Amino acid sequence: MAEYDQDNVFAKILRGELPAHKVYEDEHTLAFMDVFPHAPGHTLVIPKAPSRTMLEADAEDLCHVMRTLQKVARAVKEATGADGIRIMQLNEAPAGQEVFHTHFHIIPAYEGQRPKRPTEMAPPEELAAMAEKIRAALE
Amino acid sequence: MAEYDQDNVFAKILRGELPAHKVYEDEHTLAFMDVFPHAPGHTLVIPKAPSRTMLEADAEDLCHVMRTLQKVARAVKEATGADGIRIMQLNEAPAGQEVFHTHFHIIPAYEGQRPKRPTEMAPPEELAAMAEKIRAALE
Repeated sequence: MAEYDQDNVFAKILRGELPAHKVYEDEHTLAFMDVFPHAPGHTLVIPKAPSRTMLEADAEDLCHVMRTLQKVARAVKEATGADGIRIMQLNEAPAGQEVFHTHFHIIPAYEGQRPKRPTEMAPPEELAAMAEKIRAALE
Repeated sequence: MAEYDQDNVFAKILRGELPAHKVYEDEHTLAFMDVFPHAPGHTLVIPKAPSRTMLEADAEDLCHVMRTLQKVARAVKEATGADGIRIMQLNEAPAGQEVFHTHFHIIPAYEGQRPKRPTEMAPPEELAAMAEKIRAALE
């Protein structure tokens, strides 16, 4: 099994070495906007403890992640007015994992629209505005 | 918000009114083979308590689901020899939800292969053999 790389993007966000549009944070988990959103409002939830994939994560920690996932998914749905929510969690490169710190995707679904894989980062001001709406919905 | 339909397929499986190729069961959760597998080894994990979507489920219950999800995902990976695991959880029809009892998909990923949406049910003997392999990996 491969080792956890302390320099992956999410580890850097957790250490404050890279910026992120955060929407929620507690002792065990962090939620922030995906900079390559498959749909407006695409948010990520991660455990703070290091693990490469969900298969290797601490079970107790995943329980905390699940609580945050539900809380934030509800807020994303409310903030975006989406018709549904897709949760996606990818383990290992052949499954599509790109950052090797366990993470869950919250992807809003809209009637008659398919999610798209963007090739460019979303404009920071768009992500900031969306994060603010989701934070407001969390309150 | 729509009401939980007591006659959805997974409620019937939970009541024993419909058969399923079960791989794991405990007080709070059940795991069984998806009869329309997107890839060989495609398994579902559900909470026993009724809820239409993950957004409406009891948080404590979701924690139990997460434990089972991790346990079974590891076993599916071992049993299938998959290169990765995709977890998918769909809420509401526009997101692709078809059965309105909260459920998580465990979909094995194979290098260079894309998951497919089948149009026909997998042969029961194939599902039974796969369920047996996963149960063995769980032991």
